[in-house]
Amino acid sequence: MTSYKQKHIDISKITSALLSTTITVNGWVRSLRIQATVAFIELHDGSTSKTIQLITEDLSIIEKLKVLCIGSSLSILGEVVKHPTKEDQVEIKIKEILYLGKIHDPLTYILNAKKTSLETLRDHMDVRVKTRTFTAVFRIRAALSKATHDFWHNLGFHHLNPNIITTGDCEGGGEVFTLTTLLNNDKGDIPTLDKTDIVDYSKDFFQKQAFLTVSSQLQLELLCAGLGKVWTSNKSFRSEKSKTNRHLAEFEHIEWEVAWATLDDLMDQSEMYTQFCFNYILTNHMDDLEELNKFTSKGIIEKLQSFVSKPYKRITYNDVLLIITEKQNDIKSIYKLVELPKWGDDLGSECEKYIAEVVFKQPVFVYNYPKDLKSFYMKHNEDGKTVQGCDLLVPGLGELIGSSVREEDYDKIMAVVAQRKMDVSSLKWYLEMRRNGSTPTAGAGLGFDRLVRICTGIENIRDAVPFPVAYQECAY
Amino acid sequence: MTSYKQKHIDISKITSALLSTTITVNGWVRSLRIQATVAFIELHDGSTSKTIQLITEDLSIIEKLKVLCIGSSLSILGEVVKHPTKEDQVEIKIKEILYLGKIHDPLTYILNAKKTSLETLRDHMDVRVKTRTFTAVFRIRAALSKATHDFWHNLGFHHLNPNIITTGDCEGGGEVFTLTTLLNNDKGDIPTLDKTDIVDYSKDFFQKQAFLTVSSQLQLELLCAGLGKVWTSNKSFRSEKSKTNRHLAEFEHIEWEVAWATLDDLMDQSEMYTQFCFNYILTNHMDDLEELNKFTSKGIIEKLQSFVSKPYKRITYNDVLLIITEKQNDIKSIYKLVELPKWGDDLGSECEKYIAEVVFKQPVFVYNYPKDLKSFYMKHNEDGKTVQGCDLLVPGLGELIGSSVREEDYDKIMAVVAQRKMDVSSLKWYLEMRRNGSTPTAGAGLGFDRLVRICTGIENIRDAVPFPVAYQECAY
Repeated sequence: MTSYKQKHIDISKITSALLSTTITVNGWVRSLRIQATVAFIELHDGSTSKTIQLITEDLSIIEKLKVLCIGSSLSILGEVVKHPTKEDQVEIKIKEILYLGKIHDPLTYILNAKKTSLETLRDHMDVRVKTRTFTAVFRIRAALSKATHDFWHNLGFHHLNPNIITTGDCEGGGEVFTLTTLLNNDKGDIPTLDKTDIVDYSKDFFQKQAFLTVSSQLQLELLCAGLGKVWTSNKSFRSEKSKTNRHLAEFEHIEWEVAWATLDDLMDQSEMYTQFCFNYILTNHMDDLEELNKFTSKGIIEKLQSFVSKPYKRITYNDVLLIITEKQNDIKSIYKLVELPKWGDDLGSECEKYIAEVVFKQPVFVYNYPKDLKSFYMKHNEDGKTVQGCDLLVPGLGELIGSSVREEDYDKIMAVVAQRKMDVSSLKWYLEMRRNGSTPTAGAGLGFDRLVRICTGIENIRDAVPFPVAYQECAY
Repeated sequence: MTSYKQKHIDISKITSALLSTTITVNGWVRSLRIQATVAFIELHDGSTSKTIQLITEDLSIIEKLKVLCIGSSLSILGEVVKHPTKEDQVEIKIKEILYLGKIHDPLTYILNAKKTSLETLRDHMDVRVKTRTFTAVFRIRAALSKATHDFWHNLGFHHLNPNIITTGDCEGGGEVFTLTTLLNNDKGDIPTLDKTDIVDYSKDFFQKQAFLTVSSQLQLELLCAGLGKVWTSNKSFRSEKSKTNRHLAEFEHIEWEVAWATLDDLMDQSEMYTQFCFNYILTNHMDDLEELNKFTSKGIIEKLQSFVSKPYKRITYNDVLLIITEKQNDIKSIYKLVELPKWGDDLGSECEKYIAEVVFKQPVFVYNYPKDLKSFYMKHNEDGKTVQGCDLLVPGLGELIGSSVREEDYDKIMAVVAQRKMDVSSLKWYLEMRRNGSTPTAGAGLGFDRLVRICTGIENIRDAVPFPVAYQECAY
């Protein structure tokens, strides 16, 4: 008996070289037309954005195919024949149905498949992953992962993922998730509270309060001071209560750290890495880009081509402020702003947008930020006012990469820590590394999900991610 | 002024082609000999397991070098000259010191560097990452990551990482971490308890109880039913209160899922993947293996060579039990066991060891396990007693891979769920995928940290991981 289990051929590999042979093809129905004496089915299988046309004029097979919906899974045995109209293509004449996935609830299922708003699809993950848009987005996402590994490997970087569970808090912010085993027991085994009403973490799994990491940077700095060049693709987490298009509670974080590097090195690496990714997708996934270019993301191909056409602009924070002052009327009218940032302020998303989209119309590095805006570990410039930190702003997105040279001098770090009144008791291991034989390092972090947004033109970050997790959103 | 910031050359790229040129070299002191009129330093920089020898006879430079310890960071400008005794090697004659990392506490630091027990080093992460053993282990770990990405990419698999924060619990076990923002506030903002003393998760970040994932498998099954072949390198988490050499609370989990595949396909893929990795390390990291082969892991090279020399053994659970019965006296005496597993029992780590190490002396697939030993999603065999599940047992390690064909029939899944009295309310999204247009899929999971142990010969899994997190152990 023939079965779907026999070796099948990926749709990406079906060419006219197979003409007249009998093959097994497996996949999902993208569209179908079933008439009295003939049936046509477009089948996709994930291996390519292309589909293959199946046809049959066999009445008993047509009868069986009548239960098919868009999205039904199907395995058939068939003969490769010439496409009747398209010279260079082939189609498959069905000989036998090997498997046909039962639809228990056709009405609901078809309805879901037809409701194609990206937002609606998020509530029907099983339908979502079979659509034209999402198969293209996820193929591009996976390709960006491969491009990322190839790029850093070729530059001699070691891929290592530090701990996600941490007892420190890298950025010193409060937006963290606590993790605990004190609450798991549904028999009412609730946390023991001490007399000041604080949870007693000494009884918890790690004997102290543990969090999900917000960044692997400090761990990478330590690994860097022994391996020279390291990077991670760890997830990072923020318990920010925001419901924007740009933020997730869980995100894929590409971070790298290099010993003996300068801010210019970081900008070079950031530019090389992102342009390598854009070129990789333009070269290897034009089919998927063309699919997205049709409806969801018009103009995506031109945009990516423009990003690789020239070097990115590099400009200091000071010079950005001069531009903002000069163009203040323009900015205020475009974004309906009353007040613009002064020296020492955060630029804000509107001004960042203006600089990248209106002024330069390309990705822009802004560097040498005021020291009080940035973290304790950043190296100060000689002006005493700014730090060797840099953000990469991308048109249509905003900040993609944040980077900095780290302060390697233990005494200078401790001076900033004291001035900021920081509690660094959980950073002992890190400070020890800076205290003895400290190595100058520099590094950067990129939001991978944002990179996927750029390369697919997807508006909402939830649609760039296989299973998005955000404030009040986690159903799986 | 010369500075360490000028372009330097990786030690892996210093060859006799550079003879007589002046270069910048950066790195860390592996060993040193400082005499009255001459100083020798072996420097490493992470790019290779090899070191480069620096020498100087300049008295003013020697004076400055006197503060160096093993592990000190150092940047120098120097001339590439012939090695006095080794024909094919070069060394560097120091012209100028560009950077020398200050050791605030030389006495402690040297002591740490000399206490080379792997266990002691875990308390001194900054020293650990500079040692011969750990630079080799971490380079091999990073290489395994690259090999993994190359392998699955070449087979047409899409790399996608599902959610780590989950509201489901894949395996139905209780060993999970709860994550919450109810406990973050150190002002005593403690959880609200309802009248039955259960924490009110409707007030939490996700409006329900959320966990760290124990496996991405169910999410991969859904992605697979639209993309055909998918894999992840997500971390998984277990809150198991064990302190063994083999278990971590956070581990890197390579999981893959294929549509339309059989148990034989899974065994083929598991064998191809692991042998690809072993060959990759044997081909690209012989230097690092030789380093480990000297002290930490004697015999590691031979072991890896034997694992790629022939196909792995494949044997059913039933046949394993026959062997156990036949060899019962031998097993009882080796492992001091009173009772051996009967049909229906878990094999136990001793019998697994016996099968892989004593009987077959190579990696062994054991398949067709009794259904009650395995999870609800596994496909039953026609005998009504066993499932299409398989474990790969490796000599010196135990279980490396667990895999199975998934039950695709919604009604059969629900029958098992009912029989086991499982609460599947959090798996709605998954069951929906099985209810409508279900696709046959099969998949596997491999503990990446265990793969690193095999490829490095490292005994304790904590030493195969950059920052190990385990029960009562998380200091960073």
